[in-house]
Amino acid sequence: MAKDGLITVSLDAMGGDFAPEMPVKGAVDAVRKGGVEVILVGDEEVVRAELAKHDGADDLPISIYGSTGVVEEGEAPAQAFRSKPRASIFVATNRVKRGIADAVVSMGSSGGTIAAASFLFGTFDGIERGTLGGPIIGLSPNTMIFDVGVNVDVKPSAAADFAALGATMARLLNGIENPRVALLSIGAEEGKGNKFVKETTEILKTSPVNFIGNVEASDLPFDCADVVITDGFTGNVVMKLTESLGVALAKVIREYDSSTDNNELADKVFELTNPVTNYGGGPLLGVRGLAIIGHGKAGAYEVSQAIHTARKAVESDFIAVAEKEMNAMRKSQPASAE
Amino acid sequence: MAKDGLITVSLDAMGGDFAPEMPVKGAVDAVRKGGVEVILVGDEEVVRAELAKHDGADDLPISIYGSTGVVEEGEAPAQAFRSKPRASIFVATNRVKRGIADAVVSMGSSGGTIAAASFLFGTFDGIERGTLGGPIIGLSPNTMIFDVGVNVDVKPSAAADFAALGATMARLLNGIENPRVALLSIGAEEGKGNKFVKETTEILKTSPVNFIGNVEASDLPFDCADVVITDGFTGNVVMKLTESLGVALAKVIREYDSSTDNNELADKVFELTNPVTNYGGGPLLGVRGLAIIGHGKAGAYEVSQAIHTARKAVESDFIAVAEKEMNAMRKSQPASAE
Repeated sequence: MAKDGLITVSLDAMGGDFAPEMPVKGAVDAVRKGGVEVILVGDEEVVRAELAKHDGADDLPISIYGSTGVVEEGEAPAQAFRSKPRASIFVATNRVKRGIADAVVSMGSSGGTIAAASFLFGTFDGIERGTLGGPIIGLSPNTMIFDVGVNVDVKPSAAADFAALGATMARLLNGIENPRVALLSIGAEEGKGNKFVKETTEILKTSPVNFIGNVEASDLPFDCADVVITDGFTGNVVMKLTESLGVALAKVIREYDSSTDNNELADKVFELTNPVTNYGGGPLLGVRGLAIIGHGKAGAYEVSQAIHTARKAVESDFIAVAEKEMNAMRKSQPASAE
Repeated sequence: MAKDGLITVSLDAMGGDFAPEMPVKGAVDAVRKGGVEVILVGDEEVVRAELAKHDGADDLPISIYGSTGVVEEGEAPAQAFRSKPRASIFVATNRVKRGIADAVVSMGSSGGTIAAASFLFGTFDGIERGTLGGPIIGLSPNTMIFDVGVNVDVKPSAAADFAALGATMARLLNGIENPRVALLSIGAEEGKGNKFVKETTEILKTSPVNFIGNVEASDLPFDCADVVITDGFTGNVVMKLTESLGVALAKVIREYDSSTDNNELADKVFELTNPVTNYGGGPLLGVRGLAIIGHGKAGAYEVSQAIHTARKAVESDFIAVAEKEMNAMRKSQPASAE
């Protein structure tokens, strides 16, 4: 934390589809809201020129730190970490590792951010990879779904860790005392589902989380649980399908009847299916440092929201508490569970 | 086919959430539309009483055939086949096997219908289990997705068979000459996805179907392909999530602004996300007989639509053509493909 009480956020100014314009604008908006200072990490000249477009930027708590190159969407992250260690996401994450910033925020390649956080922060004891999730179905804003794409071929034991991490996040960020944890399946009855679901069910039944059983995709919009666990392939499909159905239906609504103005209703439908525009991004869980992963298509508003999500997580001491709870859960877990 | 030129459909009158009322009403509606006669299979007294509620039913081409018991939703189908062989779905399917009916239609337990068709009709050479799919995203009515829940832990080689079967269905039922076949993944680039996707990609690349590569869930509402292949777990999630988001959003639209009547728009959104109400149900692919699997919540309209889907499939000689094309594809497939 900076000396003046502000939380310091290291922002990947080169990450995302609309970088550096939107990250820089988002940073300006975020610091104007107060409570944070931002280090813009990127090509110094480019970022300085972008920042100069904002009147009065010199007086804001924003600094620039130079980096070279960007991890592109689709690039193999581990390879990028070796071949371009000065790329913006690695330099930005390193600001946190060195204690200069409290959290890193990126709208760039999720794979790059995950690699940076995993390699530089390290993972919690017993966790192989972090997990990413959040309230991806805006119709049910208190239901957080894990994993949404970090772990595509996930072991049942790892999924049980996601359950513990997700429950901690629901408690700390959503204020839910004893979060209901469910497993996504294709039938509510026990015994339905694929091999992954059946094996994960057995582990969750003996885990200390408040496991309420299986839910179906048809339950997801209706507040069926506080935390829903699924493999990262299915979770990613759920997230992207929800977003795109919202986009398509908002268009149908907007164009339905030219004699009435349905724009407000279309916007509402879009918001209810594309909630990441509100929360901006979520923390990678299971790593020993705070990394907020945002949406590649983020505009300035989403960037600003993601920066403030980072601030809130720092204020709640999210990482330390999550690691402590995770370890406590693992200790209380019966040996027979794995 | 009956002597008077009508297609004969054997209907499980006891299957579905609203049986026998809705199956019986759907049968009456279907025969009144013409082209079909229906055998209602179920508890004779119950079905006769239900049919008697319809004026003039005696003069319609509807007959009743007795069965005992029902396969309940969630019941283990293989076990039910042994313990209650006279249950409605088994008796109804047997009408087809014996050549008395041309197709069987059921709104009851999908597992029961699949077991009945698999055991009584047998599967195509080299096919272990049939596959079920269809245009489950109404926003993109020409995109058929396979599998939607029959095969939850599916082998890549079986998925390649679904691709051939799905392409045949797209050609015969949708009239698409050279259907574009895609694989659902979590990134359009090759190399993204889980183990199943990566292995299936290799097989599809050398298969005779018109494989256009991977699509993401975000592409599904936008006519990205004619046939999309996925494992039955993911496909079931896609189907149920689409339906339930439609239900939830239709409610939001209906209740949005009490000063305007948004009911028509809400109905439209519901239809675009719950298309099974239009096509009623789809054929189980890969079995040597025609079984149409409908939605458990089907009303009379959906039952009638499913009966006419059966009629159309019989008229196009769907099963024989599908088996022939399937075998041709397997023969032309390079040995290296598996």
